[in-house]
Formats: sequence, C-alpha cells, structure tokens
Amino acid sequence: MLTKNNIKNINSLSKKKYRDEFRQFIAEGDKIVKELLESNYNIISLYATNEWIEANEKLISPDCTTVIIKQNQLKSISQLTTPNQVLAIVEIKINKTLPDPCEDFILLADRIQDPGNLGSIIRSADWFGFKDIVCSEDCVDLYNPKVIQASMGSFCRLNVNYTDIHAYLSEYKDKAVVYGAFTEGQNVFKCNFRKSGILVIGNESQGISSLTENYITKKVFIPKYNESESFTPDSLNASVAAALLMGVIRMGMVNS
Amino acid sequence: MLTKNNIKNINSLSKKKYRDEFRQFIAEGDKIVKELLESNYNIISLYATNEWIEANEKLISPDCTTVIIKQNQLKSISQLTTPNQVLAIVEIKINKTLPDPCEDFILLADRIQDPGNLGSIIRSADWFGFKDIVCSEDCVDLYNPKVIQASMGSFCRLNVNYTDIHAYLSEYKDKAVVYGAFTEGQNVFKCNFRKSGILVIGNESQGISSLTENYITKKVFIPKYNESESFTPDSLNASVAAALLMGVIRMGMVNS
Repeated sequence: MLTKNNIKNINSLSKKKYRDEFRQFIAEGDKIVKELLESNYNIISLYATNEWIEANEKLISPDCTTVIIKQNQLKSISQLTTPNQVLAIVEIKINKTLPDPCEDFILLADRIQDPGNLGSIIRSADWFGFKDIVCSEDCVDLYNPKVIQASMGSFCRLNVNYTDIHAYLSEYKDKAVVYGAFTEGQNVFKCNFRKSGILVIGNESQGISSLTENYITKKVFIPKYNESESFTPDSLNASVAAALLMGVIRMGMVNS
Repeated sequence: MLTKNNIKNINSLSKKKYRDEFRQFIAEGDKIVKELLESNYNIISLYATNEWIEANEKLISPDCTTVIIKQNQLKSISQLTTPNQVLAIVEIKINKTLPDPCEDFILLADRIQDPGNLGSIIRSADWFGFKDIVCSEDCVDLYNPKVIQASMGSFCRLNVNYTDIHAYLSEYKDKAVVYGAFTEGQNVFKCNFRKSGILVIGNESQGISSLTENYITKKVFIPKYNESESFTPDSLNASVAAALLMGVIRMGMVNS
C-alpha cells in the first residue's frame, strides 16, 4: 500500500538535500528501472503496477520491497509528466576512486548546470565508450531526477565522480593531454587525438572558467559552416558539443 | 502598465490553440529578443524593464508597443523559471515555399516531440549552415516557448516548414539523396555525403516511421564505440544525433 508517509518521503527525494540525507534517489520508467535491476545498484523499493511486477518478477531481488500500485497512484509520487508503470528508490553509490586519464579518455564537466544536459552527456559518453566522467563540485547533481531520466539508464554503466577538478587537473596536467572545448584553437575535425586524455566541457553560458583554462593543454573547436555570415549562433548546446567531440575523438581512433 | 488582460492574453500564448488563433508567439530574454529585433520578424509588443529599454532603444521600432514593467512583474507573464529582463510578443510568419533539396542540404524532422530537442536541432542546424528544416505536421510546434528558448535565437535565421513530409519526399526521392538516421546502414564517418540532399531524423522513441522509411535512399548510423559489450545504450538523444550527422555532412564537404 502507498501510505501518505511513502508519498512524502519519495517526493522529498526530488531535492538534493534529502537525497544526501537518506542516500537514496528516484529512478522511473520501464527502461531505466530494468537497467538498474541488471546493474550493481542496490534497489531499496519498487512501486509498480501489478502487470509490470508480473512481467519482471525474475529480475527483482528478494531483498527489494515491492509495492503494487495503480497507474493513477503513480502520479502522486512520479516526477514525470507522464508516469510510466514503475518507480524505484535506489541507494546512492559513492565513488571514491578518480579515473586515470593516462589509461583512457575522461570527460570532465566544468559547472554543467542543466540536468537535461548532464543526462544527455552521460548517454552520449556511454555510446562513445567513455567510462568515466569527472564533475566539478558545482555541477548539477547526478541523482537529480531529470539527470537520471535524460541519461536513459546510461548512468548505470558509467562512473561519475564529483571532485575538486582543479586539484585533479593539477595532478594530471603534465601526464595527460587536457583538451578543452572552446570557440578557438584547433578544428576538431583536423585534430589527431591520442588514445587517452581529458576532454573538458564548460558551463552552458560561460564556457570553461578562466581558472580551469589554466590547465588546458590543447584548445579545440567545432567549426561553424558559414563563419563569414553576419549573424551566426554564439555556441552549440553543451551536450551537443560534448557528444560531437566524444564522437570525433573515438572515430578518429577507429579510422587511424 | 501591465493589465490583468495583458497577463491573461500573454499566458494564453503558451498554448498552440491560442498561438494559432492570434498568430502570435512569445519570445523571452535579452539574447533572443535582440536577435528578433535584428530579424525580419514583426514584434508587436515588448514588456521590459526600464534599464533594458534604455539600453536597447535604438533597436526598437516605433511601431512596437513598449510596456515598462518591474523585474518582479515579469514573473506573472514569463514562461521561464528565471525571467530575464524582457518578453516580446511576436507575429507568426507563414512559410509557404518548401526548400529544394537539389540545391542545398535540408533537415527533415519526422515526429520530433520534445520541444528542447527541436530547439536544439534548430540551433545546431544554424551552426552547421542548414538553412531549411522541414517538419512533419505532427512535430512539436516551432512557436512552443520551449522550442524558441532552446533554439537560442537561431529560429530567426532558419526557415522551418510544417508539411505533409510524405508528399514532399515523394516529390524529391528520385532527384535528391534521402539519408536517414538509423542504427544500421553505413557508418556516417565513412560516408561521402553529397553537397545537397535530405537528412531525416526520426521520433525520440520510435525513430523514423516505416512509411517514411520507404523514401530513404541511404541509411546511415553513428557507430557505438564498444559494440561488443553486453549492455550498451539503444540510441543517442535525437538532437545529439541530428547535430553529429549535420556536423559530419558539412565537415566532410569542407575536407573534400
């Protein structure tokens, strides 16, 4: 049964304060919850329709509390405009080991604010085989419901760390190439990327901060098609730019 | 002065029904409104802070009704969570001429539903010099405030048409190459794109419809990096895939 207390507790997890306090987050919808059930995340409870539970019985651990609810009851706990069969309460994982950019390519997010952008970046990173994302401490929270939703389950397969990025960059700046997405530097389509390094993506409106810029070894840009025209956009969307750079980094390696 | 009637009329424009009835839409924020003032859109009225109007006086046409309001009054008419200095009521333009895909590359959107995605696609199209977007009649409305916002002013520079895409494709399928974004076909990084043609992007969850697929001359895909791993994402975000394909189409041409 879905109690008033359940509803209150679940909805509180839309706020970072309560996610931090309870070390829990919300994930919703058939696709994302199925991916979670197959991952090493610990699912504390599931609120789902009878049909969904019957169809997915084999995936559900006996330790997990299962609450059968009606589709219209989902509305009272869902963070989505169109609730979709199932909502999971999941234990937050704490990552302590920062990735080594001498071994593989790492994406570093400098103050990404929009949850849809971070989620989309995680989804694209998964597609292009980036296993680690390092976020500045003032990036939007990974466990924000909108980040989880936009990542479409890809957050289950990636390590996302929040850290003091300047300390991290300082440790690796002489060992790994630190590429930064700017509107100047080298044309990304003509750049020979190495097999490992750090790719830095900056804030949606301000780009890479001047402090972070000190650690960039190589500035790269995504060329506009008609640079000469009087009016052109200032920038691409941050998640679009990140995906394009990750794609070119990986495909350059495949072709070489 | 901002009357109750003003507030009611402005907020009604968040709905397509009223935008169609009044042939008006809302655009907000310093950057987007400035781009509109420089464009050939007809701005009917501006609701702005005194500081904004003083700073932008030279851009404002004498035909435009200007209403000075306080920053906190903006909240009552704004569609944004953080209102930003100015809101414009703009006349909808009607595009009647469909673009010729034998002359330039056209992006065709088949049932794109998310306003953030359509806005981001328009912004990326502008960056990569795609001047024309053809949308299926069931795509999200160009003048949805979230589309306008996500396009970051780029909608001012592009022609976006809504039409029966199957009639359009039928007219051009023997004259132009129709590329479609799938998860199979030719690796986009190894594809020699022509200078003109049609690039079709499908719906967020269902991709390109089977009816539209009949008109595709060449299927292309964005390769995953680790195809062999057991769990990989099903797809990229539609606006990310569109941007990556447009970028590769244009950059292939620049390099050749």
